[in-house]
Amino acid sequence: MDMLGMFCVRACSGLVAIRTASHVRFLHSFPGITVAQIDEEVAKLLELKARLGGDDGKHQFVLKTAKGTRDYNPKQMAIREKVFNTITSCFKRHGAETIDTPVFELKETLTGKYGEDSKLIYDLKDQGGELLSLRYDLTVPFARYLAMNKITNIKRYHIAKVYRRDNPAMTRGRYREFYQCDFDIAGQYDAMIPDAECLKIVHEILSELDLGDFCIKVNDRRILDGMFAVCGVPDDKFRSICSTVDKLDKMAWEDVKKEMVNEKGLSEEVADQIGEYVSMKGGMDLAERLLQDQKMSQSKDACAGLSDIKLLFSYLQLFQVTDKVVFDLSLARGLDYYTGIIYEALLTQAGVAAVSKEAQSGAPSEESVSVGSVAGGGRYDGLVGMFDPKGRKVPCVGVSIGIERIFSIMEQKAEASAVKIRTTEVQVMVASAQKNLLEERLKLITELWNAGIKVCTFCARAHTHT
Amino acid sequence: MDMLGMFCVRACSGLVAIRTASHVRFLHSFPGITVAQIDEEVAKLLELKARLGGDDGKHQFVLKTAKGTRDYNPKQMAIREKVFNTITSCFKRHGAETIDTPVFELKETLTGKYGEDSKLIYDLKDQGGELLSLRYDLTVPFARYLAMNKITNIKRYHIAKVYRRDNPAMTRGRYREFYQCDFDIAGQYDAMIPDAECLKIVHEILSELDLGDFCIKVNDRRILDGMFAVCGVPDDKFRSICSTVDKLDKMAWEDVKKEMVNEKGLSEEVADQIGEYVSMKGGMDLAERLLQDQKMSQSKDACAGLSDIKLLFSYLQLFQVTDKVVFDLSLARGLDYYTGIIYEALLTQAGVAAVSKEAQSGAPSEESVSVGSVAGGGRYDGLVGMFDPKGRKVPCVGVSIGIERIFSIMEQKAEASAVKIRTTEVQVMVASAQKNLLEERLKLITELWNAGIKVCTFCARAHTHT
Repeated sequence: MDMLGMFCVRACSGLVAIRTASHVRFLHSFPGITVAQIDEEVAKLLELKARLGGDDGKHQFVLKTAKGTRDYNPKQMAIREKVFNTITSCFKRHGAETIDTPVFELKETLTGKYGEDSKLIYDLKDQGGELLSLRYDLTVPFARYLAMNKITNIKRYHIAKVYRRDNPAMTRGRYREFYQCDFDIAGQYDAMIPDAECLKIVHEILSELDLGDFCIKVNDRRILDGMFAVCGVPDDKFRSICSTVDKLDKMAWEDVKKEMVNEKGLSEEVADQIGEYVSMKGGMDLAERLLQDQKMSQSKDACAGLSDIKLLFSYLQLFQVTDKVVFDLSLARGLDYYTGIIYEALLTQAGVAAVSKEAQSGAPSEESVSVGSVAGGGRYDGLVGMFDPKGRKVPCVGVSIGIERIFSIMEQKAEASAVKIRTTEVQVMVASAQKNLLEERLKLITELWNAGIKVCTFCARAHTHT
Repeated sequence: MDMLGMFCVRACSGLVAIRTASHVRFLHSFPGITVAQIDEEVAKLLELKARLGGDDGKHQFVLKTAKGTRDYNPKQMAIREKVFNTITSCFKRHGAETIDTPVFELKETLTGKYGEDSKLIYDLKDQGGELLSLRYDLTVPFARYLAMNKITNIKRYHIAKVYRRDNPAMTRGRYREFYQCDFDIAGQYDAMIPDAECLKIVHEILSELDLGDFCIKVNDRRILDGMFAVCGVPDDKFRSICSTVDKLDKMAWEDVKKEMVNEKGLSEEVADQIGEYVSMKGGMDLAERLLQDQKMSQSKDACAGLSDIKLLFSYLQLFQVTDKVVFDLSLARGLDYYTGIIYEALLTQAGVAAVSKEAQSGAPSEESVSVGSVAGGGRYDGLVGMFDPKGRKVPCVGVSIGIERIFSIMEQKAEASAVKIRTTEVQVMVASAQKNLLEERLKLITELWNAGIKVCTFCARAHTHT
């Protein structure tokens, strides 16, 4: 990446040079660079060019979508529709209603809900009137909706785009504009039943989409907090240490430990104790064992969380989904608003990894194993209360399916299978051998249209300039 | 409105006062004010309050959606889905594919496409990186997509939200965030056939939605330009006079004429000549008559447009839609990019007017007649060329269905009909008389879910705080 960075800086400082043939030779001196990486670098350069106002002072129009965003062509739309239909059917099978909220919210609606991630929120320009921001997820708008309409009880889904000024990695399905498919249950119910239903939903959707093997990691914020407490982490460092633990899916324990000791100021001893706990994975048995654990059992928080994990697994057994669910003490989701159970689903089959192309062409090999999370969620019992004028709480639990990574995999599978994807539903094509039967053709086509038949006379297809 | 304005200013300058009981008496002194108007004023005040940072320095949270936007509750979503299904079915019947584009574009992509309306574009805050704007319509992103992918031939639909910083009038279905349902045909075809198909589509959709009687007005930019030329309007005033003519659906001719003479500097005589033409309405016969018109026939532009109108009507006859189409010389759509035929569909049945509530409660009576346009479009042969690096043109014609007004009407009809709208598709509810049969219930429900049955055990409904 250093070499790439240098390439970028050097090319930028000599925009004219890059337009000569010599830049081709220049590229050859970077044997490790992939096509995808070049595309991303080119996009960066063009962006810079646009900001510099083009070359020679003459305005050159940049024909591109905004950084981190993409168009969907008809083929991609056909695949997307298929994925949405599977997801929507599942949500409906579980009796959910659907709502929609605006793409932007008052800026203050989003303030203080995302912790460190708040810096990734897109703000709108102040053009007079209210200060607005693009929604960062669908959960906070949902909580705002519940409080605003005084709703205490609803099972709803919401499929819509959200916006994050993150560092995009589009070859890995990470965008700045992306869909979330959210299912949430708000209201007071028997403990852990709605939570178990969310996991059942993830299990159903990932099974039906046929994306290869997957695994759903489960943990609880109270177990994490209790663990930090009994290990001797000071209260004010819980969130910060939590976000370090969250990096365990991308970093080795040694590096995570270094961050805890060197950057976050924990003692080696405390870090090692955390390290012992976060290496634990299991099922109901692990929860039972930890309830007996001399240290862990000292924390009321941890015990409450562990009892709930036990109860959760008993329901997951009835729901027939325990085969994919793992109680994993290293799971620590970043968002501030979670209060109880948290979970994350990962695809474990390296073969269908969305990153495989990139991995084959020279990117670091650890990328090829981690397909990344495709769903995540948890319980957030305090969020609605933050919006209610009287602070009335509405317990909520939900899950968000991340469609872009799933979509990348589906798209690759479709390409590999060579099955032709239909982008229209045309049933009849009205044609004639002679050119001058136009009137007869139009009469016939009208009759067919009026009868509800899908038909075309001149069938337009996405033809490109030759 | 002056009284309302005063109310607003006075209330704002005394925010503390408005929170005392006296403001109720204060309101009674405005007998003409409607509930809808009060709602809008309250929203304005709350907005101002939010900007002032709340009262007494203490931060009071404002629980609302951004100005001019709305949530959709499950009932409204059910109606919206129904409308979308009707529209999508029609687009598919006509063999269209679908695409999607990002909600924001590079700012410069939108620059210079909308004439005077450009001031209504939402910009994103400059947070480093590219300068971005929210899309204003789906047509310009479509043209950008065609040029970027070098597509010269496609029939596509796109249903998505667009954004305009317009003065919202939500009771009349005018929002700042609203859906457009666009159908466009790009490519070189026999003259007027794609144009006629767009009108056929509007006819089909408005008939199927069963919104009462409607009328589709048709004109041609070249006829307007030719008319202005032969009436003696200077070339550089065409667009400006065009936008004055566009006001004829809201203003009487006398007032339009005044604007032409007093503000735009036309002579009385020129204005009167325009007035004579723009009062003409008819069908193919009118086009034939105007082709013989001594003045009109002097303009090559006008003649080309009139011949095309004739040809269009011949196809509309074959498509069996002439009953609703009127050649109306007063139709002049505002957008800059139209180059040929233009059209607009209006609901003519005053009874189902979306504004009827407002009209009954004291708003000016002319509002109650004009339900406003529910669809519009035209030919834009130059837009793609503005994006192509070599200026290659792709002829395009399209139509946009404005869903919010249609939706307002559908919602009112649903309320009036008292037919219960289902917001879930649940087929089975699993319940038990005793509380302790939970395990059996969950087993049964699992079996049903796994068999694809839509079922719930605790059926959450949108219950509100009591």
